Amino acid sequence: MARLRFQISISLDGFVAGPNQSEENPLGEGGEALHEWVLALAAWREPHGREGGEVNASSPLFEEALAATGATIMGRNMFGGGPGPWGEDPWCGWWGDEPPFRHPVFVLTHHEREPLEMKGGTTFTFVTDGVESALEQARDAAGGKDVALGGGADVAQQYLAAGLLDELQLNVVPILLGGGTRLFDEQTAAAAPTLESVKVVEAPGVTHLRYRVGR
Amino acid sequence: MARLRFQISISLDGFVAGPNQSEENPLGEGGEALHEWVLALAAWREPHGREGGEVNASSPLFEEALAATGATIMGRNMFGGGPGPWGEDPWCGWWGDEPPFRHPVFVLTHHEREPLEMKGGTTFTFVTDGVESALEQARDAAGGKDVALGGGADVAQQYLAAGLLDELQLNVVPILLGGGTRLFDEQTAAAAPTLESVKVVEAPGVTHLRYRVGR
Repeated sequence: MARLRFQISISLDGFVAGPNQSEENPLGEGGEALHEWVLALAAWREPHGREGGEVNASSPLFEEALAATGATIMGRNMFGGGPGPWGEDPWCGWWGDEPPFRHPVFVLTHHEREPLEMKGGTTFTFVTDGVESALEQARDAAGGKDVALGGGADVAQQYLAAGLLDELQLNVVPILLGGGTRLFDEQTAAAAPTLESVKVVEAPGVTHLRYRVGR
Repeated sequence: MARLRFQISISLDGFVAGPNQSEENPLGEGGEALHEWVLALAAWREPHGREGGEVNASSPLFEEALAATGATIMGRNMFGGGPGPWGEDPWCGWWGDEPPFRHPVFVLTHHEREPLEMKGGTTFTFVTDGVESALEQARDAAGGKDVALGGGADVAQQYLAAGLLDELQLNVVPILLGGGTRLFDEQTAAAAPTLESVKVVEAPGVTHLRYRVGR
């Protein structure tokens, strides 16, 4: 069965976004530094329509994950556009007309909405009946490939607590943010997932720790 | 100049001891699991007078650190015996007559006490005039070797916030404790140390992340 994989950049003190997040500063104070390593990669820049970039030890991990992924699940906050009903002229995501996913994306929301077909193969389907339903739909749509959990942290916590996550990759960035959004909380710890290290990769500005998640 | 090095075992959710620490359970609930990897090492067992044990990827790190260390600094809590004045029949540490350090150890305390000479080369010196004084005395006593910071987390935070730490090694254990004592706090983040990865070692049950600390 298609595996559910989640990867996220995290500071050494455990934050996936900095303090004082706002609409203007969605990553919080200092949070941009969590993503510098990936924005520098040619493997990230090319699908995002940007030139240049580095090839380093992070590149194969990034490329393999991209190639292995057939569908993505994300939370409403990550899709963006603010909370509440979608309204007259609804938000269509942060990614422009041609989002970089190029596969089916399932957005967890409390507010129904028709599917949204974008250029380049990305379709956003809005799922209102919970995380298990979203996973089932994403697995069906993934064509035998894996399902990536896009985030945010709250959605990852739900999947982890529900015992539905198969693989967790922490991209550990050696900064201290001092506050903000944590990935792990008491609920996830109470679910007592078993974590087994399957890969460790040291790369410029980041260390990748990949774990198989049991239940 | 002798470097100040600190290493500590830490859960994936950032705790160096579990919740509900007590005199009977000084590592907190679940906290013992943080140290299983080291207790299994022949390199740890031998100086602690125990037989057997494993040789694995953690062993050279442990042995190198031991060989490189000429003095240790630790907090009063780590030395043990409870808070307050030392009293009539004072506590002499957790380690019996012949502690495994075999070099000078400086204990940070608010309560004066004469130095305590143990068998096998360990001397406990009680330092009441602060972290900088302890570091100066430890450097003088280390005979050109490094100074190890023994812990606990609060003492490490003080040295990190003061910009006095040179090397930080996190021994990341893939468990979630859900609560307890954190290594990093807002003060350490506010001190904005620069951390540069110098070594990553994957070993059974633990991943070692070593950082050079700048200021």
